[in-house]
Amino acid sequence: MRVVSCEYQGQSRWGVAVGEQLYLAPITRAWARDVRQWIEDSTDPLGLAKTLPDEGEGPIDVADVQLAAPLPNPRQNVMCLGLNYAAHAEESMRVKGKALEMPEHPVVFTKSTRCVAGPYDAVPLDTAITAELDWEVEIALIVGTHLHKADTATAQAGILGYTVVNDLSARDIQFRHKQFFLGKSLTNACPMGPTLVTADEVIDPQRLELYCHVNGTLKQAGNTADQVFRAIEIVRLLSWVMPLAPGDIIATGTPDGVGFARNPPEFLRPGDRVACEVVGIGRIDNPIVAA
Amino acid sequence: MRVVSCEYQGQSRWGVAVGEQLYLAPITRAWARDVRQWIEDSTDPLGLAKTLPDEGEGPIDVADVQLAAPLPNPRQNVMCLGLNYAAHAEESMRVKGKALEMPEHPVVFTKSTRCVAGPYDAVPLDTAITAELDWEVEIALIVGTHLHKADTATAQAGILGYTVVNDLSARDIQFRHKQFFLGKSLTNACPMGPTLVTADEVIDPQRLELYCHVNGTLKQAGNTADQVFRAIEIVRLLSWVMPLAPGDIIATGTPDGVGFARNPPEFLRPGDRVACEVVGIGRIDNPIVAA
Repeated sequence: MRVVSCEYQGQSRWGVAVGEQLYLAPITRAWARDVRQWIEDSTDPLGLAKTLPDEGEGPIDVADVQLAAPLPNPRQNVMCLGLNYAAHAEESMRVKGKALEMPEHPVVFTKSTRCVAGPYDAVPLDTAITAELDWEVEIALIVGTHLHKADTATAQAGILGYTVVNDLSARDIQFRHKQFFLGKSLTNACPMGPTLVTADEVIDPQRLELYCHVNGTLKQAGNTADQVFRAIEIVRLLSWVMPLAPGDIIATGTPDGVGFARNPPEFLRPGDRVACEVVGIGRIDNPIVAA
Repeated sequence: MRVVSCEYQGQSRWGVAVGEQLYLAPITRAWARDVRQWIEDSTDPLGLAKTLPDEGEGPIDVADVQLAAPLPNPRQNVMCLGLNYAAHAEESMRVKGKALEMPEHPVVFTKSTRCVAGPYDAVPLDTAITAELDWEVEIALIVGTHLHKADTATAQAGILGYTVVNDLSARDIQFRHKQFFLGKSLTNACPMGPTLVTADEVIDPQRLELYCHVNGTLKQAGNTADQVFRAIEIVRLLSWVMPLAPGDIIATGTPDGVGFARNPPEFLRPGDRVACEVVGIGRIDNPIVAA
């Protein structure tokens, strides 16, 4: 199923998408209030979502709603992998004049819960704050169950689904402050969506193409086959250190082709549009606007 | 005022402490449900807290409740400053064989919302996960208003209060994964409290003594006068990059004397007790237990 959050007739709603039609969860106590509650409180979230085309409100044309991030209010920061594609690790080290050293352990930082944005939301750019706003197409996974010290099979079963993230990064701030958090947490720096695609619809999450276009020009083209740490391994490793819980979001890193590693470097400007796509999962498309 | 969250007679409550007596907010719709709602929804949180000794439920002896972190459920990860005392920056660089280089910009990382724990909660230590659990006494500030691109005066007015944090750190995990988030987010790795002391009670937040004792032995003794970035400056700088909001927690860094920089290094073991105190703010005391 493809699960969505949206604004419809002035209200925050959630439901499922079937093609271009939505079926929204009724606003009654029998139904979860939002995607977070759907994930946290359902004993069988997928089974419940499957009943929505029959029992939900709809069909409603997707053009008649404003899509939000599928999980707009996570309970902790979005966790993100750094340097998780070999070619991106290489380009990053090269810019810094360092020898290529692949991470032996996943590099994990976070983005503020507050910067999660919808799949088509405008991203305000104040050029007095950053002169180096950069793109990063990523596939993110959403955790569906409590996981602590999970083995591989448990980790696999604990992945509820996937979505597309643009891990927008202010490189000047990111590198100036050493730890990445601040430069990764500007307003709307985590556009996400357009839907949460449940794991049963993804035949092989390690064989998905990723693309990023800026103003229609291809900037990144990758494949999750090239990830250093695969999704299941990331979940297993993280759950070993800290308990994971339903609704945790983990963005799994970006392939090469980011702006700061280009020669000459390229950064986003007001008026630009950034489109991030993971084939089979979805495409988000965000205008950059002067703030 | 000194604001608390607690378990009392099987229910989560909040209120204020006056000496050893508590006055709890009544469980009615007229009162905020918890400290987060008190911070977010009050037009005058301090004024409201001041009415509790008259209008709250009490007095209740503090010994009859179980204190929780004053703000147990923040909406985003706890933000933390790294290397914010010169002597701690020096000891950290020395261990890594690096020349002393003071941060020109604050180093900011986060701890998971999920690892926030009460002021006397046990901290489980699984020695199969980390062999290097370390202490860090810190004073944390709690943001009271929305702040974006705040000037110094606005930043100062935006600090609602202060509390004590032990920024427990698994050094092996922290350094192995490069970015600090994972090694800082083990279960109960962010004990906090015992109360939120509102800013009007703190005459000079940059002249406060901090101490950490392990099993009664002094390990850290510092003074916020030695911070590289002062609380107000931290709030101002962060608000420039990202919008801050009521209930945001920022831990302002630890002085020297941490375990990994000692010769020989020292780490926590099951059976240890770690007490962190900021004089005038409070003292938290957490047993480390085998997990």
